Amino acid sequence: MAAFHPFRGISRDFHGRLDVYGRDWRDGLKAGSDFLRILAPTTYIFFASALPVIAFGEQLQSDTDGALTTAHSLASTALCGILQSLAGGQPLLVLGVAEPTVIMYGFMYSFAKKNRGLGLPLFLPWMTWVCIWTSLILFVLAIFNACSLINRFTRMAGEVFGSLIALLFMQQAIKGAIGEFRKPDEDGLHLDFSWRFGNGTLGLVLSFGFLWTAMKSRRARFWRYGTGFLRGFIADYGVPLMVVLWTAISLVPSRSGGVPSGVPRRISSPDAWSHKASGNWLVLQDLLKVPTEFIFGAIVPACMIALLYCFDHSVASQMAQQEDFNLQKPTAYHYDLFLLAAMVLVCGLLGIPPSNGVLPQSPMHTASLASLKHQILREKLVKVVDGWNGSSQELSQRLQELVEKETRTRQPNLESHDFTCEVERIEKHIDAMIPTALDEQRVSNLIQSSLVGICVVAMPAIRKIPTSVLWGYFAFMSIESLPGNQFWERFKLLFTAPNKRYMAVEEGHLPFLKVVPFKAIIGFTVFQLVYLAACFGITWIPIAGVLFPVLFILLIPIRQFILPKFNSSLKELDVATYEA
Amino acid sequence: MAAFHPFRGISRDFHGRLDVYGRDWRDGLKAGSDFLRILAPTTYIFFASALPVIAFGEQLQSDTDGALTTAHSLASTALCGILQSLAGGQPLLVLGVAEPTVIMYGFMYSFAKKNRGLGLPLFLPWMTWVCIWTSLILFVLAIFNACSLINRFTRMAGEVFGSLIALLFMQQAIKGAIGEFRKPDEDGLHLDFSWRFGNGTLGLVLSFGFLWTAMKSRRARFWRYGTGFLRGFIADYGVPLMVVLWTAISLVPSRSGGVPSGVPRRISSPDAWSHKASGNWLVLQDLLKVPTEFIFGAIVPACMIALLYCFDHSVASQMAQQEDFNLQKPTAYHYDLFLLAAMVLVCGLLGIPPSNGVLPQSPMHTASLASLKHQILREKLVKVVDGWNGSSQELSQRLQELVEKETRTRQPNLESHDFTCEVERIEKHIDAMIPTALDEQRVSNLIQSSLVGICVVAMPAIRKIPTSVLWGYFAFMSIESLPGNQFWERFKLLFTAPNKRYMAVEEGHLPFLKVVPFKAIIGFTVFQLVYLAACFGITWIPIAGVLFPVLFILLIPIRQFILPKFNSSLKELDVATYEA
Repeated sequence: MAAFHPFRGISRDFHGRLDVYGRDWRDGLKAGSDFLRILAPTTYIFFASALPVIAFGEQLQSDTDGALTTAHSLASTALCGILQSLAGGQPLLVLGVAEPTVIMYGFMYSFAKKNRGLGLPLFLPWMTWVCIWTSLILFVLAIFNACSLINRFTRMAGEVFGSLIALLFMQQAIKGAIGEFRKPDEDGLHLDFSWRFGNGTLGLVLSFGFLWTAMKSRRARFWRYGTGFLRGFIADYGVPLMVVLWTAISLVPSRSGGVPSGVPRRISSPDAWSHKASGNWLVLQDLLKVPTEFIFGAIVPACMIALLYCFDHSVASQMAQQEDFNLQKPTAYHYDLFLLAAMVLVCGLLGIPPSNGVLPQSPMHTASLASLKHQILREKLVKVVDGWNGSSQELSQRLQELVEKETRTRQPNLESHDFTCEVERIEKHIDAMIPTALDEQRVSNLIQSSLVGICVVAMPAIRKIPTSVLWGYFAFMSIESLPGNQFWERFKLLFTAPNKRYMAVEEGHLPFLKVVPFKAIIGFTVFQLVYLAACFGITWIPIAGVLFPVLFILLIPIRQFILPKFNSSLKELDVATYEA
Repeated sequence: MAAFHPFRGISRDFHGRLDVYGRDWRDGLKAGSDFLRILAPTTYIFFASALPVIAFGEQLQSDTDGALTTAHSLASTALCGILQSLAGGQPLLVLGVAEPTVIMYGFMYSFAKKNRGLGLPLFLPWMTWVCIWTSLILFVLAIFNACSLINRFTRMAGEVFGSLIALLFMQQAIKGAIGEFRKPDEDGLHLDFSWRFGNGTLGLVLSFGFLWTAMKSRRARFWRYGTGFLRGFIADYGVPLMVVLWTAISLVPSRSGGVPSGVPRRISSPDAWSHKASGNWLVLQDLLKVPTEFIFGAIVPACMIALLYCFDHSVASQMAQQEDFNLQKPTAYHYDLFLLAAMVLVCGLLGIPPSNGVLPQSPMHTASLASLKHQILREKLVKVVDGWNGSSQELSQRLQELVEKETRTRQPNLESHDFTCEVERIEKHIDAMIPTALDEQRVSNLIQSSLVGICVVAMPAIRKIPTSVLWGYFAFMSIESLPGNQFWERFKLLFTAPNKRYMAVEEGHLPFLKVVPFKAIIGFTVFQLVYLAACFGITWIPIAGVLFPVLFILLIPIRQFILPKFNSSLKELDVATYEA
């Protein structure tokens, strides 16, 4: 077992990534106009990273009576993100303060509140102890190669986990939207029935309005109207623009008379420089005031958090470098876990909540970069086609060479298309020619984390965003994370009319459709569906819900020993590297 | 000139339609299961006919302080619709009380209110005199073949008029949605700021919710999910179902506590059997109480209404039988105008507002029937293909024969497709094979008018519909009436990226795209756009707005003498029968 070779994983990862470290930067800082284009996926992922952190920060603030605020969750996200981009193993991994962290902190705050020996003044120092223990456990896990387990997770597990996250994000969106009809925690507002009704209804308008326009704008490149530049710009920056647009729209009713004050409800975090928020780093002074029994008692929550982080971090990293994305550089699960341990320690000592690798942002990051790569390559190919005088076959070969050179792949799915006859249709053919490929780089993560850092001091602007736009954003991220998830594609297939199944074949997400019997697909999909329901059910059990990774680890023996007995097409449906 | 042969047009129309009268009924009552399917377009057009009449009825009621109500506008629509279906020339023409009628009645009510010699008690008798004069003028116009002018209207005029109606419907939708934020006329409600805000915001949710789901449901046949039956059912009955669904949704907040009373605002017409509404036919008693000067003064508004009706009725009829629909039976403009004159007289004597041919409902009626015909024929073709054993070429011929037999056309655009190789794609090929065709019949109009009649006594149920759903419905009708309007398709083309123009070619709405220079298309479209803007501007001028037909009649000389000098491609863009 790998566990008996301590440091082996970390060392291998470290050297593997060190070899490509220079290239990581060069690939990000490509010469000329291409460099600026990286700002599109960067902005996209910055919003996808910052907005949920702000929402979770609000929740954290309400759960801890303001001991921790949005400013802290943003600070942690920025700090860890910058560290990951500079010194991390997998540079595409997006870090952030996520929901499970918030839930754990909430539970521990209520615990501290109830325990006289601890009390509210010692809550933060105690949390530092929890972080110290968590960090320690993570170090041990990293050193003894715990992440070897990640190779036992097949596509199936990632699919269910991705779907669970999508489900949780959608749940958050729905909860949030319904919450707009409820009484908020803040005081000083007219909280009568009609206030709640007006706020809730306007919330629905803003949430759905944002969701709809954001979804539409992502597809702008395929619009029929407008210049190519405009469509490209909207597709690249539409989602951030829509946040701004719907925030602006939400300001209209507030300005006109007759709207109850405080409608629509907005983000309410205090400024980072407010007295409430700026003193957390003083936590070190009180570290030894925590009673000994609580110092050691902190091991219990630390174990839970460590298990959770180890799982989440690795799975987020794995999903950011799924086989489908066709990445070329080595993995670094062990080293990244080692780094995470260090970051948890730093965050704990600073009195801020720690960050870990997050879903669905990490695969969204990769997907948006792949899409950029696709566009750039596409433009190059179109240029070649436009200026071509030679034969159709030579053109085909020329394009193939270009694709191979740019994507560093050797088996592009090229066929000899007759480009000259239908110039108008060229788009379709070229799209089919380009394999998914991208260069891992550190620039986009560095910029987006720095932008999150700027958010810490930009609270006055952020407070203009209505909470209902946040709920729309959660729904958007949930929906956006699904396409390409084979479980989701198979799930939809269950409801597809038999005479329309060929459309799913054409889309190409399910390459096995023509070889695997439909019954086997149904069986496998229903199994995943039941498992997903079980995982989702677990999250509803108060504190135990944080332990859903255990259910996922159970998937390893199920996949390896039980499923093959029932499903003979498993090899096509869910390739496992240990079987290959 | 045809005018010198009085009755010639009416007589020719009458005999032309008499010859096919039996077939009109037989075509509607086709044997077997096909008959029931006519209920789908019938229900669709019933809602499209009844809901605007209800909305205009509400407006009428508010403009006349309740002297005329929704019950009256529904009664007139039902009566005239039944007459048209039984005795009308063009049986596809949908009649109804339309916006211009409401505007005229509103003006005349204010006039009566101000004039002591007339006064409110004589308003209705005076209106009867207006109707008598209108009817007389319409009789004269019909007898002297005024509708010959309709043949001078080219496609271009119909396009601009159709777009104007779409614009007016959209304007009504927007006005209505904004109006939900204003204080309603009714008393006894909490009309404070938060009431208005809550009502307006919920109105937006209901309007947009309805609009979006109705648009989506119309496309259900192309959905990928669900059984064919379910998709067909949703496509056929989705719009009525969505009215019911969103009305049901609107009842949810009302039932729970905390919503201001009267939110959302609903249709507020009184019952037909209420004292207010049921006595209008007693108008005859007071007919001679109207002072002589007002009896003759009624000729002025009568002239305006007659001109308007003559134009609207004929254009609605023309657009219901556009060349694109490929109808086979003779036209009946003169006879229909003659019948309209009689109907105006009857309505006037009954003390209810008269109906005339309406847009966009009339072409919507034809289009929905054409879509039904398409589906039925399609199913027959698919059946043939599914059970085929012979050669591909024989199959092609067999299909061609079937199409020719069913559509009674001789030039179906058939090519020899290789059906056997790609069974899945068969849908596409078959759709391309079926020419637009339908059988004019009288059944759908009879049923839909009778249903409108039932509405008169169903006010308690109709009053459950929120006004905001009505505004959504107006928007839906506006949008639904545009596709296929070549002006609209060309307008969109102006904003289409050059490399995406081939998509417009594929859709086939603009057959001239490949032969006419793009510049000529731009010029022609911009001219129509300016003309549309002028017509729309005119409608904003209080009473003169009703006279916009004059602007349209101006289009005849413009089209015949001026445009050909500027645009050499006019023959392709806008075929005129007198040029052919």
